[in-house]
Amino acid sequence: MREAYHVELENLANNLAGMSSQVADAMERATRAMLEVDLELAEQVISDDVKVDDARAECEEQAYALLALQAPVATDLRTVLAAIHAAESLERMGDLALHVAKAARRRHPEPVLPDAVRSYFSEMGEVAVRLARQAEQVIKTRDVDAARTIESDDDRVDDLHRHLFTVIMDKEWPHGVASAVDVTLLGRFYERYADHAVSVARRMVFVVTGKMPGYTSDDI
Amino acid sequence: MREAYHVELENLANNLAGMSSQVADAMERATRAMLEVDLELAEQVISDDVKVDDARAECEEQAYALLALQAPVATDLRTVLAAIHAAESLERMGDLALHVAKAARRRHPEPVLPDAVRSYFSEMGEVAVRLARQAEQVIKTRDVDAARTIESDDDRVDDLHRHLFTVIMDKEWPHGVASAVDVTLLGRFYERYADHAVSVARRMVFVVTGKMPGYTSDDI
Repeated sequence: MREAYHVELENLANNLAGMSSQVADAMERATRAMLEVDLELAEQVISDDVKVDDARAECEEQAYALLALQAPVATDLRTVLAAIHAAESLERMGDLALHVAKAARRRHPEPVLPDAVRSYFSEMGEVAVRLARQAEQVIKTRDVDAARTIESDDDRVDDLHRHLFTVIMDKEWPHGVASAVDVTLLGRFYERYADHAVSVARRMVFVVTGKMPGYTSDDI
Repeated sequence: MREAYHVELENLANNLAGMSSQVADAMERATRAMLEVDLELAEQVISDDVKVDDARAECEEQAYALLALQAPVATDLRTVLAAIHAAESLERMGDLALHVAKAARRRHPEPVLPDAVRSYFSEMGEVAVRLARQAEQVIKTRDVDAARTIESDDDRVDDLHRHLFTVIMDKEWPHGVASAVDVTLLGRFYERYADHAVSVARRMVFVVTGKMPGYTSDDI
């Protein structure tokens, strides 16, 4: 039974790594679609989202099967529950990438972003995607050091998000209210994506090691 | 063991009902603090949020104990997992009420909302709180009909949210960019709160009946 548990947990972890990769690709493409005003790429992100939803349903079914058939306890049980939470966050990250792609599509052929804020989104996108790829790497390599820049990357997104607001709120913002609304919501999507990515990366460390970085057991 | 399972599930359900009540109160007060420019009430919501976080940690520990000691299978297992997901959504609803209260505090003594959009928020708040109270009622009364207006209430929040955007995006919006940014984020907080409330109310029906309304088992 212990061996069956570990084989099934390994399968579940691999699927979570696959979801991490899917939502990293989705946000990378959505960001490029938005910055480069690429309608085709936006459409691709939009139509691919259902795959993330399917992968999440499959992860949940694997987790249910693991709980029902293996009845794990102690750390093993918390590991499976961490996987269930991670799958939920990953699905949400896919939704947020979808929102970015839809914003790009909605304004096409106009760019959704004024030039003044492009660099913020370019960097927020880069850091957010890196966080999602770290989650994938932790599972694939079993190297928890792969996740060591999580905290500083998260801080960086928060900094960028705060600076973005000072740009929008500036009395001289010349791009109008509609554009400010777009930029506000998009900034929020990246910030939420990064928050979920941090939470997923931490949970992946738990799935691999049975220990949650920077958390007490109550926060799992 | 079956009896112990049902006693423990009942305790867990009662705690979820308590969380529903807490986050309904939080959003009701946050909305009033925002509409009536009441700093004291905003502060109360902000300082009370930690209680929601504690209640969630307690629900998760109860669910872990249930899984570890009772090793439920089939519908019983899905019921416990539905409870874990519900606790996560409820904590998030508390966070969103907290965001509303913080926005009210940030602009004090100025009102955060221009008069033109007050009625939208008043009604979004009312419907969002009603959704959270329905979740509580389902558990307390075991009357799943208490949740029968879930879908129409959710549609109403989406309608209000859409109309709100047409007001902000109107070329004649006279309240400036900073105000548009505030209203955009606040609108998003209510919409997300309502989405989570719908999901919680549905899960509460599942916790009581073992059947998920309007869902296939994959969506649980």
